[in-house]
Amino acid sequence: MKIAVLGTGGGGRAHAAKLVELGHKVYAGTRDPEATLARTEPDMMGNPPYGQWLADHPGITLGTFGEAAAAADELVINGIDGHNAVAALTAVADGLAAKTLVDYAVPYLYNPDVEHPWPTPWGVMPKLDPCDTDSLGEQIQRALPETKVVKSFVTQEQTTVVNPGVIAGGDHTMFVAGDHADAKQQVTELLKAYGWTDVLDLGPLVCARGMEMYAHMHSAIGFGLGQQFGGHFGIKVVR
Amino acid sequence: MKIAVLGTGGGGRAHAAKLVELGHKVYAGTRDPEATLARTEPDMMGNPPYGQWLADHPGITLGTFGEAAAAADELVINGIDGHNAVAALTAVADGLAAKTLVDYAVPYLYNPDVEHPWPTPWGVMPKLDPCDTDSLGEQIQRALPETKVVKSFVTQEQTTVVNPGVIAGGDHTMFVAGDHADAKQQVTELLKAYGWTDVLDLGPLVCARGMEMYAHMHSAIGFGLGQQFGGHFGIKVVR
Repeated sequence: MKIAVLGTGGGGRAHAAKLVELGHKVYAGTRDPEATLARTEPDMMGNPPYGQWLADHPGITLGTFGEAAAAADELVINGIDGHNAVAALTAVADGLAAKTLVDYAVPYLYNPDVEHPWPTPWGVMPKLDPCDTDSLGEQIQRALPETKVVKSFVTQEQTTVVNPGVIAGGDHTMFVAGDHADAKQQVTELLKAYGWTDVLDLGPLVCARGMEMYAHMHSAIGFGLGQQFGGHFGIKVVR
Repeated sequence: MKIAVLGTGGGGRAHAAKLVELGHKVYAGTRDPEATLARTEPDMMGNPPYGQWLADHPGITLGTFGEAAAAADELVINGIDGHNAVAALTAVADGLAAKTLVDYAVPYLYNPDVEHPWPTPWGVMPKLDPCDTDSLGEQIQRALPETKVVKSFVTQEQTTVVNPGVIAGGDHTMFVAGDHADAKQQVTELLKAYGWTDVLDLGPLVCARGMEMYAHMHSAIGFGLGQQFGGHFGIKVVR
């Protein structure tokens, strides 16, 4: 399948590499491909320059957000950071029409003037915007009425999303939410190909609120386990 | 031990009954004991009248919030609904000084004029206030500087908190957060007496933010499992 992965950060790279491994043709999207390839320094999260990473990962075609979206036949993974996602996706709405868009972003408000910029101290995360009475997933769906938005992957680091077996043999839970049953089924199939055995459909896209707000709890659990400098955990819904 | 349980709703009743069963002397607190005992109708959550329940549960002494707090030798469980908790607790601060107060409230904004009052449709919960950059747990700690506040129990229905074995033999995870290590240890011991085997200390009280915000995810999981009319699940942190 031809799958687009928008965004060139660590999450986007994890999905792109795994999708190639699974035999898909991957179209990676970035705002400005020339600028992305020209970078020679690690990005703000410490990832190596994209051009270097791309050379080590054959089978991935880099283009603009619009080119990547248009190249996908059914499925697009949104790895654009939360505060830029709505504007960037709206600009390429035509290429996303009638396709499934999986969104895993947390809508952190990155603002160097706020009290606790990233990286954050114990338990204090950047403010979420939107939060509680709306979600980024819903905002994207409203901006892209012709696209089938599915919120998923957001409760876990993306390196673990594409390789759930690193924790407890993969016996933990991944969640999907969205207003389009066929799109949720498509994402569930992708998750099974990634190795997930327990994918729970939470219901309509409004459940993206709880999924995004879980970000604070996820961080707190990581700190509580002493994993602030790396590590893996998952949550299993036991019933 | 003499333990106070403030609040006479379903959660307070679950803790009071279990604590008696464990051999403790329980002091239940309510705003106006005469009014509480005079009620003959089920409360807003469908619980039977408190007087009737109390007659079926010997060993519990009902008094005012202040009388119950003062009677506790070390430990007080706060089951006062979230939007009244700070004011009600501040009014009895003397009786709570130097004691451990476990808070499990979700600070739902109950307002009949808001779009989605309780009970809520799928995935849409009442607004949280505070949320994201503050928590009810922290508000209570600021209001009661002489008291050791521990946030716990909030990620689960209280009937399951006092009887975790109803799910997966009890092999799921309960969380504590607070700024006082001795108080967290005390609450952890109580949880072990309740039957919990996996109690994770998330860290300082600021982690109450994530714990309270998890309420939306908890409800979404319940709906996703088809438990909107009752049922049980837990989450296990697998690592």
